[in-house]
Parts: sequence; structure tokens; C-alpha cells
Amino acid sequence: MTKINQNFLKLPGSYLFSEVARRISAYCAGHPDAKIIKLSIGDVTRPLAPAVTAAMHKAVDEMGTFEGFHGYGPEQGYEFLREAVAQHDYQSRGMDVKPEEIFISDGAKSDCGNIGDIFGADNIVAVCDPVYPVYVDTNAMAGRAGEYQEALGRWNRLVYMPCVKENGFTPEPPKEAVDLIYLCFPNNPTGAVATREQLKTWVDYANRTGAVILYDSAYEAFITGADIPHSIFEIEGARTCAIEFRSYSKTAGFTGNRCAYTVVPLELERDGAKLNSLWNRRQCTKFNGVPYVVQRGAAAIYTPEGKEQTRQSIEYYRENAKIIREGLSAAGLSCFGGTDAPYIWLETPGKMGSWEFFDLLLDKANVATTPGAGFGPSGEGYIRLTAFGDAQATKTAVERIQKIL
Amino acid sequence: MTKINQNFLKLPGSYLFSEVARRISAYCAGHPDAKIIKLSIGDVTRPLAPAVTAAMHKAVDEMGTFEGFHGYGPEQGYEFLREAVAQHDYQSRGMDVKPEEIFISDGAKSDCGNIGDIFGADNIVAVCDPVYPVYVDTNAMAGRAGEYQEALGRWNRLVYMPCVKENGFTPEPPKEAVDLIYLCFPNNPTGAVATREQLKTWVDYANRTGAVILYDSAYEAFITGADIPHSIFEIEGARTCAIEFRSYSKTAGFTGNRCAYTVVPLELERDGAKLNSLWNRRQCTKFNGVPYVVQRGAAAIYTPEGKEQTRQSIEYYRENAKIIREGLSAAGLSCFGGTDAPYIWLETPGKMGSWEFFDLLLDKANVATTPGAGFGPSGEGYIRLTAFGDAQATKTAVERIQKIL
Repeated sequence: MTKINQNFLKLPGSYLFSEVARRISAYCAGHPDAKIIKLSIGDVTRPLAPAVTAAMHKAVDEMGTFEGFHGYGPEQGYEFLREAVAQHDYQSRGMDVKPEEIFISDGAKSDCGNIGDIFGADNIVAVCDPVYPVYVDTNAMAGRAGEYQEALGRWNRLVYMPCVKENGFTPEPPKEAVDLIYLCFPNNPTGAVATREQLKTWVDYANRTGAVILYDSAYEAFITGADIPHSIFEIEGARTCAIEFRSYSKTAGFTGNRCAYTVVPLELERDGAKLNSLWNRRQCTKFNGVPYVVQRGAAAIYTPEGKEQTRQSIEYYRENAKIIREGLSAAGLSCFGGTDAPYIWLETPGKMGSWEFFDLLLDKANVATTPGAGFGPSGEGYIRLTAFGDAQATKTAVERIQKIL
Repeated sequence: MTKINQNFLKLPGSYLFSEVARRISAYCAGHPDAKIIKLSIGDVTRPLAPAVTAAMHKAVDEMGTFEGFHGYGPEQGYEFLREAVAQHDYQSRGMDVKPEEIFISDGAKSDCGNIGDIFGADNIVAVCDPVYPVYVDTNAMAGRAGEYQEALGRWNRLVYMPCVKENGFTPEPPKEAVDLIYLCFPNNPTGAVATREQLKTWVDYANRTGAVILYDSAYEAFITGADIPHSIFEIEGARTCAIEFRSYSKTAGFTGNRCAYTVVPLELERDGAKLNSLWNRRQCTKFNGVPYVVQRGAAAIYTPEGKEQTRQSIEYYRENAKIIREGLSAAGLSCFGGTDAPYIWLETPGKMGSWEFFDLLLDKANVATTPGAGFGPSGEGYIRLTAFGDAQATKTAVERIQKIL
């Protein structure tokens, strides 16, 4: 008799974004004339850059000819893209990252989840609280999270690192011994960034204890501060303790085009094994590469036109973030994030609960948000707003919220 | 200190296709004028169908506009594609497969590997011998294969089902109790097919014992025999014991375009859980869908033009298979497969070893093949030839082999 993976049955039923969608639908059913503005979902809205679509058209044409056809590509990604990444995202910023350390994939979500394959089930995992649910759920599936404690909204084998106002939403290394540490900066959901000094503390901690940092920098394109590191590899010592995840989803509007990459330094070893070799083996065995057409599109992001066009889109979203941040601050609300990130983390007024404030904004302002409590216990008392919408709609949403307060 | 997944260290070092590539390179280095014809690798060579590239161009255009842009799609795939699959691949053949049972993915290799996530580590896994290495290696990584016995070329916790001349390369259920059974028909590497009666035996066995059949029908488009089932779901009772993997890689030349799907029937339950829900949860948590552009391309395969164009390509490859099969049979060799599959499974003459015959063909005929021993112990004494090459080159290769025998 086949046994299922019992860890799946421990996962709490309702996924945050499904519950948000359910409440919006229910509200709309009761208020068919309501024009809801969604500042809730982290999906982009601006089209692919012309440089990207031109490259994709060219690649589609190639795929239709005998001479230009590309069958199975390298599981790790084409050299043309790995080299572009190494050069433009790392070497040009003074980091010694080589093409063979870069693994092109179909998404940072896939990689953040699949990376668990190369680690033992007995590692102790540390996550920020609030946190992007994928880190937690994938470790729960692998048996590393223990049991879910419904009343606390926590797993009993995970180490939660509260990210709260008092620590500027950037935690210090925990007192407990931990083995795998998920860090995400610029952060989803809080929009917080980590300084060079803060990341140095983490890198030193990991090198001292033998932990591995799983660093998600999917939002690095939103960084404006000159001193804020874009990559963990800007920190001395990171090459012996960190893996970095990057994505074109938010950088270049690739959420529906699916391309990302993971950097595993050649120096990174644990238990006498190179993690680069383990990840390579994992990818070669359970993955077959990203579509040629998509990789050509991704490479076009690094051309002068591609850079300029994607910069303009990022600028557009940044302006939205500014409108939300300034507009709601002017209305007397406490806003965090939104300067180096597409997310604004808003403290609810009068210590109102996350879901209560969510319902209030939906009902009175017809603005959809994401309740902070859905990202973890320390998210209670906050909501997350995103800057990925239309500029005019974003302005209207802010005005509506200002009006009801 | 981070612990790695020790199972990775148990994997034998050299992957079959790497060793084949290494020997070819070494030979070419020593014989720079040799014109090697590769009948070794299972990759297609004909371009994407015009219907597919037209649909992809249209989708790229959409992605470049505000109105047509598609961000995150459903993790399970777009309804337009799931419905096309259900209708054309199943319902039109009398099978009651519904869109919600179909999960669009980036490849059958990914799915065959990732499906292990939903099953416990203690299941006993049965594989054919010879076998597509991905089934074995992914289970080894998950700890289900036990220890690798170098001298035997086998894992001590897997149940191997010999596929040999005596059973027509189609095994019967094993005497041992097994929980997960990988079957692949038309088979890679032997090119064998299973009859309705043979599959019925398997379905009855699985329903009786509670095992789950993981049915890989990536090569179903090559079936010519009217009585040969294209899907496990043609067999009564399969909906309570089987998961099916399909791919556009060989059907429509998508090896570099990456699109496939997995069917998990709603009736399939184990341990009181619906496997459809478990797989859905896995995909929603660790996968973010297939690129919109690629899904539009895949849907075009089901249009009248798409069907006709892909049929022509399959026909071209089938003709190659016929040339190999008939040409080498005429030369006195024993050939199997190649009628309902793109693979020909060739018995080496005079009980020669697989690698020895591989080296002989490379050296004397300048034809690259794949040694059967690389697919498992029962593959010793065979080599695999593939029909995915150029027709003229395939003819030349056959003539060269005829000449040296």
C-alpha cells in the first residue's frame, strides 16, 4: 500500500492569498457596483519591454527553422545568459561570481522550494516572522518544520525571527543553533532592507556556526540607497556560507514569462561536499532547463535598450510606492518599507487587527490589501500594500483611504 | 552545522549520457576528420510547427501590451490548455479525464522527479530494468533506493523488473510487495509497448495491493498499432491507481520549449488523501506555472493545422525508425522496438558487451549509439538507437553499420 508524505496533511488548509481572494469575491458578490482597487497581490502589470519581446520574436523564428532550432538546452541554462548574469549583475558590481556558479531556472519560488532537496531533513531552519509562506511550507513538506500549532500560527521545529518595529524589521542571528537561514532583502512583506553591517553580522555568524544562508534578493532592482547591498556576495565571507536567489519577475515583469537564477559559489561546502555540485546534480536530474525563447528574452534585459526599458518600469512602480508611502503617512498612518522595495508595510491604526483593517479598507475604501497576520504572528497589526498597480488607480486608492480615516 | 542530503553522495558519479559524450569527444579529438552520425541522443531535430510558432508570436505580442499582458498564471496551467488536453488527448478517445485532473508543467522529467514529494520515504519502488535513469536517481535522492551496489549496478532497496527478450521487454507484476511502480510505454529505451491485457494485469495488481502506477507515456504519439493503448486511462480501474505523465517534447518537438502535463485522477486516494490535492498543493507551493507564451504554443498543437503539422514530423521520425529497423535486421541483427516508438533496441552480435559494441560502431562506422548497459543490468548486450535524426544521415548510418558487419 502506497504511503503518502504525511507532512502534507499538517499544512494549514487555507493559503493566505486564497483567503484574500475569497473575501474580495464575497464582497463583490454583495456589492456588484463596487470598483475594487487591488493593492494586494505582488504581480506586475506593465508589459514586457520591447527589447525583450523583440528577442523573443527572433528566438521563436529560430525555433521554426532547421538551422535555428534548439532542442534540449543545458539544464543549468545557456552560456549566453549565464555569462550576461555574471557580468552585469555581479562582476560589474565588483563581485567575483562566475558563470558556472549561476543556475538559470523557471522561478525563484521553484528554487527556494527545490533547494531543500540537497539538505538533510534534520536541519534546523530559521525564518523571519513575518515571512514569504513558500520558505515555511516547503520545509514543512520536507519534514523540517515539525508540527503546526494552530493556536500560535507557528510550526514547533522552526526558529522564528521576529521582524518588528523595534529592530527595524531586520533581525539579528538567533540565540538558538540553526542550520539553514532564509533571509529576503529587500523584504517581502515588510519592504525592509539590510545594511552592509547587518549582513556582515549574518555572514560572520554563518561562517562561525557552519549554517547556510539562503538569500532571496528577488527585489534588488528596487534598491535606491547607494549603501544598501544588492547581493549577499557584496559581503566578505559570503562565498563560503550563502546561496542567492534572483528573479526577473519583478525586475523585468517576467511573472508570466518564468525565468530566474540561483547562485551557488564554488567555495561553499558542507559535510565535505560542494553545494554547487549537489545543486547541479539536482537540476540535471529533476529539471530540464528554461525554454530557449524565454532565455533569449531574459538576455535582452542586459542590452542597453533592455536596461533602459526595464529601468523605466521599475521607476514607475517606485513612484507608486512613493505615492502610497507619502499619502498614507500624511494621513497619520505609520508606513514602513516602500523606499527600496515595492512593498509598503502599514501599521493598522489604533492597534486594529490585520484582518479587521483589511475588511474595513475593503468595505469603506474598496481597496484590497494583504493582512500582515497572514505572513506570520509578528505580522499581526500590519497590512501589506504593493506598488505594482496602475499609477492613477494607486492614487485613487490612497485618496480613498485618506478619506475614510 | 548544515547537514547535506547524504543520499546525493550515494549516486554513482558518471551519468550515462555524459560518458557517451566523453567517448565521442575523445574519439573525435583523435580522428578530426571523422564525420560522426549521432543515433545516440533522444533529442528531436525538426523545427517547431508553423502553427506553434504563429501562436507563440501572437502571445509574445500580447505580452508586450497592457491589454494582453499576462502575469502570474495559474500554477496548474491555463484553462485553455487544460481543456484542450482533456478534450483532444482523452475525451475524444473515450476517456473521462477532466481539466481539473490535468496539471501543465515544464517537463515530464520534472514531474517524474517531483511527484516523489507527495509520497513517503518508506515506499518500496519498482522500476523496469533497463530504465530511464531519472526514475531511479530521483528516488535515490529521496532515500527510497537504499544503497548503490557498484558491482551489481543496482540499488539494494529498489525492485528491478527485468525487461528481456523472453518477456517481450514488458514485465509482469513482481512477486515482492511494491508500493510505487514506474512504467513507461512506449518504452525508453527498449521501444516496447504494452498491450491492453498487459496493462489490465498491472491495473488489477495495483488496485488489489494499493500500489500506485506512475505511467510515463511521453512517446504515445509514436503508437501505430490500433490495439495499443495510448494511455493507462484506457484501462478500466486505472483511475483509482494511476498517475500519467505526458510531454510535448517528442510529440511536437518541444524539448527546447518545455511543456508537459501530468494527470492525477480525482478518484485516486491513498492513506485517506486525494493525490490530486497533494499534487496540487505541491505545485502551488514549489512551482509557478509554465510561461504564457509556451502554453499558447502548446495549445496550437491541437488546432487542425497543428495536428497535421506535428503528425508529419512524427511520420518523418517513424520513417527513420523503419529505416534503422529494417536495414539492421537485413544485416542479420536482432532489432526490437521501432514500430510504435522512436527507439530501436538492438541486440549486440555475438553476445558482445554494450560498451564494446558502442566503441566498435563509433570507431568502424563513425556512428554514435547508447550502450544498453547504461540503462541497467538487463540492458547489457544491447544498444539503443534513436530515430530523431536527419533522414539522409540515418540512412548513411545504417549503410555504414551494414558494411562493417
